[in-house]
Amino acid sequence: MELNSIINKIMESDSIAITFHVSPDGDSLGSSLALWAALKKLNKDVKIICNDVIPDVYNFLPGIGNISKDNKLSPGFDLVIVLDCGNKDRICSDIKFDGSCFIINIDHHKSNDNYGDINYVDSTAAAVGEIVYKLIESLNVSLDPDIASNIYTSILTDTGAFRFSNTTADTLRIASELLDKVKFDFSDIYRRIYYSKDIKRIKLYGLVIDSMRLILDGKAVIMTITRDMLKSLETELGDTSDVINIGMEIDSIDTGILIKETEEGLKISLRSKYLFDVSKVASKFGGGGHIRAAGLTLNTTIEEGEKLLTEAFIEELNAGNNKSI
Amino acid sequence: MELNSIINKIMESDSIAITFHVSPDGDSLGSSLALWAALKKLNKDVKIICNDVIPDVYNFLPGIGNISKDNKLSPGFDLVIVLDCGNKDRICSDIKFDGSCFIINIDHHKSNDNYGDINYVDSTAAAVGEIVYKLIESLNVSLDPDIASNIYTSILTDTGAFRFSNTTADTLRIASELLDKVKFDFSDIYRRIYYSKDIKRIKLYGLVIDSMRLILDGKAVIMTITRDMLKSLETELGDTSDVINIGMEIDSIDTGILIKETEEGLKISLRSKYLFDVSKVASKFGGGGHIRAAGLTLNTTIEEGEKLLTEAFIEELNAGNNKSI
Repeated sequence: MELNSIINKIMESDSIAITFHVSPDGDSLGSSLALWAALKKLNKDVKIICNDVIPDVYNFLPGIGNISKDNKLSPGFDLVIVLDCGNKDRICSDIKFDGSCFIINIDHHKSNDNYGDINYVDSTAAAVGEIVYKLIESLNVSLDPDIASNIYTSILTDTGAFRFSNTTADTLRIASELLDKVKFDFSDIYRRIYYSKDIKRIKLYGLVIDSMRLILDGKAVIMTITRDMLKSLETELGDTSDVINIGMEIDSIDTGILIKETEEGLKISLRSKYLFDVSKVASKFGGGGHIRAAGLTLNTTIEEGEKLLTEAFIEELNAGNNKSI
Repeated sequence: MELNSIINKIMESDSIAITFHVSPDGDSLGSSLALWAALKKLNKDVKIICNDVIPDVYNFLPGIGNISKDNKLSPGFDLVIVLDCGNKDRICSDIKFDGSCFIINIDHHKSNDNYGDINYVDSTAAAVGEIVYKLIESLNVSLDPDIASNIYTSILTDTGAFRFSNTTADTLRIASELLDKVKFDFSDIYRRIYYSKDIKRIKLYGLVIDSMRLILDGKAVIMTITRDMLKSLETELGDTSDVINIGMEIDSIDTGILIKETEEGLKISLRSKYLFDVSKVASKFGGGGHIRAAGLTLNTTIEEGEKLLTEAFIEELNAGNNKSI
């Protein structure tokens, strides 16, 4: 893929808007702020637009205060760059697709539906920050600590700190070049992102650990989040999918089963390390997912749910479906 | 520093022993096994010697079964290479320093006392694995998945998965080159090292979370490990210093205080993110350490200990010593 047409379009545009997907994360924010800072250095009139809530954890990102909720200017931009968004319905701003703005779509989601006038979709990039890094290089804008911190954040968050299998040689090379070319406190970025949990979430970990029950000769662990637990902590906590990782940290465990009691029934998350294809178990109950991560919903009591899931895994064991895949 | 003299000595030696520091860790094991595999490829008669216990978590390392506890051959080696060991008293084997073997000392500890006939000490290397990587390159030995996995492990463990501030551009460049040149499952290495906790340790986390108490307007958290907790889990668990990190994950927290009740009194660990110089507080009680990590011992009850520590931190606050450093 060539960045040239993007470079040319940027160079001929004066006013540029940057936007990204709803529920912004470290990659969409970091890559946008890095590109924003680079375009500023090229004396562009550039604005980041997002109508969604920015998670507090990213308040430390250089430039974050410049993200605008004001959409009124949108038809006036020469160019709109959409980052990290696979689908135009998921864009976090009201940019119109009526031909009034030229749209560049830069993304790494395989499922991207090429909604832009120029589409640059590299699904081998672990983070859009990698693509923006290459773009900034090609624009001949020099890196500075603000740009480096934002790109590093985008890569860190989308690779789970370089541990997910989407991490590539290119990912690590770019991180290496950032550290080589600029002095910035990457260790502090880690701390700000990963050491920033609400104390209620930590307290919930404690309650979930207390609820842990090993099954299948210690190969699997069942964990429970009840409505009473959340009530006792006076919190909803929103997304609690991270909680399952506590069980996965146990050495003997292959499979983690997290049962969350909600008003719409039991929401169940499944994870595995080596043995089970958890998507098979999920599909038995109308759920779905991947080999190593899947989910399903049950309309039963917690006790019945535990029983059904245990039986389903025993069935898999008996069918010999517990081999490494 | 030049690797040439090391290369020459290796090339002229037939039988080579590799050894490292007592209480071996991911870096000493990974770097030794990588060098061992490389020297095998050069048809050297090479042996890794270690009289200490190898932690089970490293059983997955390629070649680990070849580490020998047999020291009898030691005077017979043309060359002994000691890796990752700053001091000859800490070597995990009985290699004699009587001139009967030629000794190469390869290390990254600043405090290394240069006990070798050749000493290669690079304190900018995050892991000895980095130096061994360069050595293997200079020996013109081609990388393979076994060598790559071992070097990656050495780097991963000594940098806390690239998050400690000892990580450099060179560290990330080497990791990038490993991924680029060889196909190996780096994500699985992460899982095997960091998702391998005894369930009793996870249960202890739960008890410690339950014990958490915020002080100093939520700036600090006190956590406790009592003898009763360990008794209820029927475990000693040895080193429990990792437990303090649970408190550090809380967003509002600057300082973590972990009080462990032992037969020799209260062992107290202190950590901070930005505000306090915890070594100052530790030194008030005859302890010591660094700005961000320190420790001390108290011969009081837990309640008295909590009170003394809280007062000491309030004193620091009142003295205005709670600025970022």
